[in-house]
Amino acid sequence: MYGIHLLGEWYGCPTNEPLLTHADALRELCRRAVDDAGLTIVGDRFFQFEPQGVTGTVLLAESHLAIHTWPEVGFVTVDVYVCNYTTDNTQKAERVFKALEAALKPARKRFQAIERGGREIVDDEPRRAAA
Amino acid sequence: MYGIHLLGEWYGCPTNEPLLTHADALRELCRRAVDDAGLTIVGDRFFQFEPQGVTGTVLLAESHLAIHTWPEVGFVTVDVYVCNYTTDNTQKAERVFKALEAALKPARKRFQAIERGGREIVDDEPRRAAA
Repeated sequence: MYGIHLLGEWYGCPTNEPLLTHADALRELCRRAVDDAGLTIVGDRFFQFEPQGVTGTVLLAESHLAIHTWPEVGFVTVDVYVCNYTTDNTQKAERVFKALEAALKPARKRFQAIERGGREIVDDEPRRAAA
Repeated sequence: MYGIHLLGEWYGCPTNEPLLTHADALRELCRRAVDDAGLTIVGDRFFQFEPQGVTGTVLLAESHLAIHTWPEVGFVTVDVYVCNYTTDNTQKAERVFKALEAALKPARKRFQAIERGGREIVDDEPRRAAA
């Protein structure tokens, strides 16, 4: 049982986009993207910064989605982490990631896909992954 | 402005440990670890799986903590992600990570520290980091 963790940093998103500025709008987008991808929501929590900016997570049966926005500079970070326990959820995670990217419209982006160990793996060595 | 994202997979945690099995106990541990490290909680959400297991997140002004437990096999995954916007929060993130590890007592572990881009970085190239 392995997991895949998709990490994005998105630059040049439209600064006046309500999806970046308002927690309710971003929460709705995230829940819809997860639902459309066929992942299972078990909870969420979003926080509205003042005067703007949002931080939020959607808890999944398969692990989690996390997102943070800095609308004043059009910057967003996003995490989609799924465990592949009974089935391979990688494509579903990628679908969520792409739906959020299509909605938030970054002009430039940085992407990392981190393979996470599963409960069967033994690996005692600390490591620093290439950033 | 950069960020650091600490990812752990912990094996061989005590399977009858309430911190692994009960959402309320794990939530209290996570909130205390974050608070003790001097990071700022802006919300949290924890979900109790039946018959056991927990998934949860603590939203931070500095980004987030996320944790998932599989007590039936003594397995835990943890994420501590902090942005270093106005100050370097790396040591605080490491302090949270170590406090959780000390409480959950993994026999074996896998660790990755991922450097995440900040809002000043431009990098168009997708990449796959070494896992």
